[in-house]
Amino acid sequence: MLIVKKFGGSSVANKERVFNVARRIVEDYKEGHQVVVVLSAQGDTTDLLLEKAREINKNPSRREMDMFLSTGEQQSVALMAMALQSIGYPAISLNAYQVGMHTSSVYSNARLKRIDQERIMSELERNNIILVTGFQGINRYEDITTLGRGGSDTTAVALAAALKADRCEIYTDVEGVYTADPRVVPNARKLDEITYDEMLELASLGAKVLHNRSVELAKKYGVELVVRSSLSQAEGTIVKEECKMEKMLVSGVAADKNVARIAVIGIKDEPGKAFELFSLLAKKNINVDIILQSIGRGRSKDISFTTSRDNLEEALSIIHENLERISGERVEYDEQVAKVSVVGAGMASNSGVASLMFEALFDANINIKMISTSEIKISVLINEKDTEEAMNAIHESFKLFK
Amino acid sequence: MLIVKKFGGSSVANKERVFNVARRIVEDYKEGHQVVVVLSAQGDTTDLLLEKAREINKNPSRREMDMFLSTGEQQSVALMAMALQSIGYPAISLNAYQVGMHTSSVYSNARLKRIDQERIMSELERNNIILVTGFQGINRYEDITTLGRGGSDTTAVALAAALKADRCEIYTDVEGVYTADPRVVPNARKLDEITYDEMLELASLGAKVLHNRSVELAKKYGVELVVRSSLSQAEGTIVKEECKMEKMLVSGVAADKNVARIAVIGIKDEPGKAFELFSLLAKKNINVDIILQSIGRGRSKDISFTTSRDNLEEALSIIHENLERISGERVEYDEQVAKVSVVGAGMASNSGVASLMFEALFDANINIKMISTSEIKISVLINEKDTEEAMNAIHESFKLFK
Repeated sequence: MLIVKKFGGSSVANKERVFNVARRIVEDYKEGHQVVVVLSAQGDTTDLLLEKAREINKNPSRREMDMFLSTGEQQSVALMAMALQSIGYPAISLNAYQVGMHTSSVYSNARLKRIDQERIMSELERNNIILVTGFQGINRYEDITTLGRGGSDTTAVALAAALKADRCEIYTDVEGVYTADPRVVPNARKLDEITYDEMLELASLGAKVLHNRSVELAKKYGVELVVRSSLSQAEGTIVKEECKMEKMLVSGVAADKNVARIAVIGIKDEPGKAFELFSLLAKKNINVDIILQSIGRGRSKDISFTTSRDNLEEALSIIHENLERISGERVEYDEQVAKVSVVGAGMASNSGVASLMFEALFDANINIKMISTSEIKISVLINEKDTEEAMNAIHESFKLFK
Repeated sequence: MLIVKKFGGSSVANKERVFNVARRIVEDYKEGHQVVVVLSAQGDTTDLLLEKAREINKNPSRREMDMFLSTGEQQSVALMAMALQSIGYPAISLNAYQVGMHTSSVYSNARLKRIDQERIMSELERNNIILVTGFQGINRYEDITTLGRGGSDTTAVALAAALKADRCEIYTDVEGVYTADPRVVPNARKLDEITYDEMLELASLGAKVLHNRSVELAKKYGVELVVRSSLSQAEGTIVKEECKMEKMLVSGVAADKNVARIAVIGIKDEPGKAFELFSLLAKKNINVDIILQSIGRGRSKDISFTTSRDNLEEALSIIHENLERISGERVEYDEQVAKVSVVGAGMASNSGVASLMFEALFDANINIKMISTSEIKISVLINEKDTEEAMNAIHESFKLFK
């Protein structure tokens, strides 16, 4: 078997953890499997490098930033090769050049386009354990690019697809994907399986286990993922196209606190006004999530929407500058909100999910400010202070506990 | 003009120094010159990385070590590009892959073979200031190599030769090449010019200003070097083939304390015995410097030689193991010695130099243990404790002071 394993930065943060991961890597190698490992930079290396760069230049060029940050992963793979060699196993580290990890030219947020197989295959034939730098690539100018947040997950999935790996294991500091964040909902249950689509909704809802792009890529190329812990031997959660187990109504509850709500009051009830507002925001790359438009009261209507808190300030200033153009009267906003969602592939064919969720929140005396639904997801916007209570109430009412 | 500038690690050790170097780089660029800069890793980065690697593996593979260490220079050049951009100048960093810095395959001690010019030239045409990682290259497997001690000097000289640069400036923390180490001989004088050959003798004698390999390369390709300070505007010292100024008898005095003396007593006075001793040492890569053979007394002779103190232990054990084979009676050694040398291109045609040197040492009551001479150098081995006094006495007698 050819197995791709990915370990995050915290899994290799210090000497002890490096050797712990080295032993995990060796388990499969000893059984005769070919092993390709993707590593992130150690611990908070990337954050420290970011800080150092900002000390020199508050707004550094993205090309130089990628050149700078990519050293973190290179250090990580070289150290792991040394660790494996010290416990008696042949290993070789490869960076994005050496693998041939070709990406688009957009620095800091490049997309993987093509992965060469020659070097990796020839090193596998030499019986080497292969350590590949996550998060980075090279563009057509031979410059270093990085893949943006969650980039190492994406590297692992893309490698598994390119090499037609038999397994792709994503190691984290939790034992798998849970029905809810166990720190918030103590009796949350680990899922044995979850579909790509459910995982995508959970990831975008802030479950933080796998990055969206890696799940999209896994779905596109049919790469079966295993999410498991680097610290225990627990089985983990399998992410795949369809789950054989009986479809659960709801597979998880997630919360996202990086949310702010903006309302533009008194917009003229004319066609195109809403479009104008959102196209202004889109031009500045501000993503809008839930949108609610009031029914026109006479000649005006209100539009409210959510965006991430990071974007709040910029969004407000864009709207204020263009308030006349979009014919709004005034703007209101609220930062003390959170989005709580339930996700489940079984939801599409069952109409009772939304009402069960609303009932649970009503019973807990939690006010719902906005609602958004998709085929496999229902999200509500509530006051931030109610987040934990809401998650537990929903988790309870859907009987997700173990 | 195309100017290559090299700055060492201490010149870019922190934010303030990075910006100091950035301003030095810009001086020539503002006057319309093309500037290519070679940088070492910041401050003690390389030492810290070495320590980190040894924590993981006491005897790491050299390939992985090079992969690991080369990140230091890459961080350095990226940061400098950011610094230059922040003060308003266009800059781009390039690592060994991006330049095409081709070396032999020997990890940790590779030799530069060929430098591609396309990328650097095209970036120069775009008016960029170019920052190149020193100390590193790539071999024919596309693996990262490093050039060993003083590697960044070598990178700078090789680049200057390949690009046919008009000037190659090596910036250090001293103002140039001195007649002696100013910390030992307070009235040592900075030289305006020195020949490659003199510089080679001084470098190998421990003057620590330029690495030998870089001077050899400069001599081979006729690259005129300027050694100057990154902290002052002083003119520095020019290193070139022939100095126009009247040839000085002696241009400098240098001392090397990394010396040990070994004596093998009572070797049978038969042909080939000395050869056998030194070929045993050569096989273990132990360099031997001064060699003294006593005149055969009857049937036996003594051979004494110097080597670096790092090699003392290994050399002694090799000799002890083979004492019978080389027909020696016993071995003596002395670690409390130092080598003091005078260097000067004018020496070759003047026979009084040696006697002037010996007289100076005699007057200072310093005992000479061994003597070695070349065309442009005279070295003596003395007791280590006498080093400073010897240097000052010689410096004085040759009237090298300012």
